Amino acid sequence: MKAIDLAGFEACSAAILSDVLDGMGLMGQAMRPFMRPLDENSVLIGRARTGLYMPVYETRAGENPYQVEIELVDDLQPGDVPVLACNGPTTRLAPWGELLSTAAKMRGAAGCVTDGLVRDIRQIRALSFPVFHGGIGPLDTKGRGRMVERDTPVECAGVRVASGDLVFGDADGVVVIPRERAGEALERARQKLTGENHTRAELEQGTLLGDVYRKYGIL
Amino acid sequence: MKAIDLAGFEACSAAILSDVLDGMGLMGQAMRPFMRPLDENSVLIGRARTGLYMPVYETRAGENPYQVEIELVDDLQPGDVPVLACNGPTTRLAPWGELLSTAAKMRGAAGCVTDGLVRDIRQIRALSFPVFHGGIGPLDTKGRGRMVERDTPVECAGVRVASGDLVFGDADGVVVIPRERAGEALERARQKLTGENHTRAELEQGTLLGDVYRKYGIL
Amino acid sequence: MKAIDLAGFEACSAAILSDVLDGMGLMGQAMRPFMRPLDENSVLIGRARTGLYMPVYETRAGENPYQVEIELVDDLQPGDVPVLACNGPTTRLAPWGELLSTAAKMRGAAGCVTDGLVRDIRQIRALSFPVFHGGIGPLDTKGRGRMVERDTPVECAGVRVASGDLVFGDADGVVVIPRERAGEALERARQKLTGENHTRAELEQGTLLGDVYRKYGIL
Amino acid sequence: MKAIDLAGFEACSAAILSDVLDGMGLMGQAMRPFMRPLDENSVLIGRARTGLYMPVYETRAGENPYQVEIELVDDLQPGDVPVLACNGPTTRLAPWGELLSTAAKMRGAAGCVTDGLVRDIRQIRALSFPVFHGGIGPLDTKGRGRMVERDTPVECAGVRVASGDLVFGDADGVVVIPRERAGEALERARQKLTGENHTRAELEQGTLLGDVYRKYGIL
Amino acid sequence: MKAIDLAGFEACSAAILSDVLDGMGLMGQAMRPFMRPLDENSVLIGRARTGLYMPVYETRAGENPYQVEIELVDDLQPGDVPVLACNGPTTRLAPWGELLSTAAKMRGAAGCVTDGLVRDIRQIRALSFPVFHGGIGPLDTKGRGRMVERDTPVECAGVRVASGDLVFGDADGVVVIPRERAGEALERARQKLTGENHTRAELEQGTLLGDVYRKYGIL
Amino acid sequence: MKAIDLAGFEACSAAILSDVLDGMGLMGQAMRPFMRPLDENSVLIGRARTGLYMPVYETRAGENPYQVEIELVDDLQPGDVPVLACNGPTTRLAPWGELLSTAAKMRGAAGCVTDGLVRDIRQIRALSFPVFHGGIGPLDTKGRGRMVERDTPVECAGVRVASGDLVFGDADGVVVIPRERAGEALERARQKLTGENHTRAELEQGTLLGDVYRKYGIL
Repeated sequence: MKAIDLAGFEACSAAILSDVLDGMGLMGQAMRPFMRPLDENSVLIGRARTGLYMPVYETRAGENPYQVEIELVDDLQPGDVPVLACNGPTTRLAPWGELLSTAAKMRGAAGCVTDGLVRDIRQIRALSFPVFHGGIGPLDTKGRGRMVERDTPVECAGVRVASGDLVFGDADGVVVIPRERAGEALERARQKLTGENHTRAELEQGTLLGDVYRKYGIL
Repeated sequence: MKAIDLAGFEACSAAILSDVLDGMGLMGQAMRPFMRPLDENSVLIGRARTGLYMPVYETRAGENPYQVEIELVDDLQPGDVPVLACNGPTTRLAPWGELLSTAAKMRGAAGCVTDGLVRDIRQIRALSFPVFHGGIGPLDTKGRGRMVERDTPVECAGVRVASGDLVFGDADGVVVIPRERAGEALERARQKLTGENHTRAELEQGTLLGDVYRKYGIL
Repeated sequence: MKAIDLAGFEACSAAILSDVLDGMGLMGQAMRPFMRPLDENSVLIGRARTGLYMPVYETRAGENPYQVEIELVDDLQPGDVPVLACNGPTTRLAPWGELLSTAAKMRGAAGCVTDGLVRDIRQIRALSFPVFHGGIGPLDTKGRGRMVERDTPVECAGVRVASGDLVFGDADGVVVIPRERAGEALERARQKLTGENHTRAELEQGTLLGDVYRKYGIL
Repeated sequence: MKAIDLAGFEACSAAILSDVLDGMGLMGQAMRPFMRPLDENSVLIGRARTGLYMPVYETRAGENPYQVEIELVDDLQPGDVPVLACNGPTTRLAPWGELLSTAAKMRGAAGCVTDGLVRDIRQIRALSFPVFHGGIGPLDTKGRGRMVERDTPVECAGVRVASGDLVFGDADGVVVIPRERAGEALERARQKLTGENHTRAELEQGTLLGDVYRKYGIL
Repeated sequence: MKAIDLAGFEACSAAILSDVLDGMGLMGQAMRPFMRPLDENSVLIGRARTGLYMPVYETRAGENPYQVEIELVDDLQPGDVPVLACNGPTTRLAPWGELLSTAAKMRGAAGCVTDGLVRDIRQIRALSFPVFHGGIGPLDTKGRGRMVERDTPVECAGVRVASGDLVFGDADGVVVIPRERAGEALERARQKLTGENHTRAELEQGTLLGDVYRKYGIL
Repeated sequence: MKAIDLAGFEACSAAILSDVLDGMGLMGQAMRPFMRPLDENSVLIGRARTGLYMPVYETRAGENPYQVEIELVDDLQPGDVPVLACNGPTTRLAPWGELLSTAAKMRGAAGCVTDGLVRDIRQIRALSFPVFHGGIGPLDTKGRGRMVERDTPVECAGVRVASGDLVFGDADGVVVIPRERAGEALERARQKLTGENHTRAELEQGTLLGDVYRKYGIL
């Protein structure tokens, strides 16, 4: 299957994409609201690259606990978004931080999404690297969790994600668009945007909401 | 009953109003702390207009799912505050967003309070329209919830609210003052403010807290 | 035992201290992630002074409900940090606010940590007094909770704290270093900082993460 | 569509039906584990009749708060199972009790499922009327909740249910089989039962699990 | 005030008392449903004797951690019910067990209610001593919690309780009747019981629920 | 290290063992109270054999999802207790059921402990095989979770467990005794039992609790 073309989505919003996915019969594509951006002004548009974590309770001598994680990061392509599934919300571990952000950014990654914690948040903000996370905390994964598979289907914050799916995040949250429905979603989003603009313009002139809704059917 | 006069409350704070309500024997008037303002610099002072939501699990053809909501918004008077009760905290639905904010602002509404989610948060902040919410998320109510009654007594974030009650929100949270106790609360708040100013002034000069508390009895 | 020397810790971060404590076999020293700073740019470095709260359900005439709290605040020494344990997270009471911040700051306190709520948050930010809290809300402790012991061992947000322990807080969270391990932690943190700087520098030049990790063993 | 034939399901179990539904690609048909039977020896097999509740916060003079509920119960046919959706788990209200059990039993109902609370539990057990509930508590719905729709699609304890779907409950929990898949599920369950019987028989003779699993592929 | 006369309540149930308290405008008198009886066949009718616990995090040499608890138990009068408020639900400590049950029973206590944990549950059942608890677990209070006040107003499982209030518990849960309303509640309960008996009798003859409800107005 | 001798523990209880572990400075050895026995009359005494689960979100063709689980069960020795760590409480998966109980019992296993769900509960009770679980539900692990390591240190319901540790469960809960402390714990438990018997005997004669506690120091 061809990789999703990301062009055009920069005019969208999580809210509009959520609405059009609803209209396409896909009502479970918005991650749960505990997921928040590190920077509410950032917008994330990219292709998912999934990583699946398991809980661990010890550090083993002579073992690289970050091996799969490192492989995933070093394999990122421009526009990719690591989606790290920790069975969150979790308070136990932060799979993402400044050094991984730096490495991912150098590979051209578009951002990161994890239902685990994130750390080094001020440094990441300074990098202007969009991260959507399940909480903030300093706890390293070593001795607490380990990425054991990558590019495998996961659930992250309540949404099923496969590598190649479109991930869109803004201040309102994160929405996942299955790869094969991305084109249709973009087309519908453009139409919805136009309707919203008309609705907003009339409301700003003081027209009653009932009248505007009857005219455009949008709210 | 006469509508509450909002003048004078702009000098108050949620903390002081909570304290004076405690002193009046009303210890359950502060909404639970999951309620947060979209903009911590905003202050909300207004009269409640309640809306009550029910969960739904389907979209019906030919039905306007927003009917009661639209009626409430189009009926808002200057100084009114829609208080949307979703049995929150909920992660399922966002009953408020940019278009409703625009419409409400045009009617003179003072802001909005909901224990559901809110969306379009950057656009709402740009409108300088105060919204206090139970979380942020892109999910439309269509097919998820429906306002079925308005101007009916509700509970929102743990506090009983009736249309006409005073709603006060700032960075510390949301406090509800029953309509018939608003005058007394304002009077007491003014006295407490004076005492706090004296206390603060003495503390800033390095006086011990024990000495200042003995003098003014405020903390 | 000698009081901890705070010098040198200003170059650290909660993430690095958490990592070195992990390496010292102390994996439970980071407070749970519901703890957040009022100001994400503030850094807190100080010596714990613990206060232990109990829930109460009435106000008693003729009793000073703040007595132990006032004693603790008036006894603060420069560099001290009140650590107020409310068995949090709690939604019931805010043991800290503007007036206590003012009094504590005048005594030279380095900040405050509580797993209860905090109020007067804009005023506290204006004071540049670092507060790490378990939530925001206007509810006074009077009639809801009472500090009954001070300088007694407590648990705050999942971490055991004794008066005299080092408390470090920044945007990533709060870490507690037992008094007798502070020197070792600082020494290790300095080494880790150097390794991270090298790692970051190489990553910024585009070196693969796998290669950098093989070289420095840090992530 | 023809009503589901209930015959044959009495040989099944919730665990086996859950497994065969998994195999049919339907992995979300088991209600969440907070749902428990009043009597762990009871088995519930019937056709869903849905009722949808909304939260209310007042009792209105002159209004029958039980109207839709009464209509649903009086309309029950033999083999029907009221499925009362309260957006549970909830601690607020008990939509089911002894009198409704008595009335439903007289109509031939097979039992009741609700993600709300149940009350009069000893009396209901004495009636041998199977009830699967989201908790136990004495709180009447009057002034707390109201059934507003019946025979409408709902979600109950995490599972979508429509009137006419098959509801199966035993000590392990509640499973919902969409009406149009019931025949296929029964057929597969019969095959699985045979395989389990062979597996059990060999295990009881002390054969290693690995050997038995290689032979029957069941666990 | 005269002590409540317990006679007559043995014919009541938690459900009926909850209903009549609702009718008297007291809608918050049922403890939250996490409270369960050790034995679902037991009925508890008695006068509250409150104990208030605080969390502690150390054991102190030379201190009797059970002092106030022992004083309360040794002071119990026939028909009294210790109501131990631990700010539950809690998973941290079990303030009640076999030895306390034995001691309380010897003083004539009617049972025990706690929103903390209970232990020695099989032994307590063998004593036929009714205990309603917030969970089951082996953890002693020593080093975890301490009763610091007795006969002080508390909240237990969401309900305000003062010493002298009537406590009624059965398989459906625990209801608290304020001392001064007990007589009225009993009177109303008797009337409701009669109505329920008529309703049940007609339902058992197959009359439609709608018809019976129109006649007796009870459900 | 020598395997723990299980003899002598049958006279103990979870409550007494929890107390003596407290006295040995081990205050975190009782599993959280969501863990419950399938049969409150069963007692479990055995040596832990750990299994560690990870969440998965797909079924893979040609793969045996139960491989490590089967290996663990087929390797059980008399007196062993599989301790299955699912990062519970979880509502997602039931790693234990009737067939595994049958297989484990044939190998001489003493029971099973899991912080995941259990299914086939009536059949397991009929086997008199002690299971302590984190909930009840029909959901197979296939496509939901997978045991990926065995005999590795885990945390189960809040307690660290290594293969070889003593696991004791009864109606009050589950306690884990580290292998190297088992002898000391048993010795102390015997002494405590004697003290409790004296205390009980005196209480049954009506002696005041204060007097008995002064004499034996036990409660």
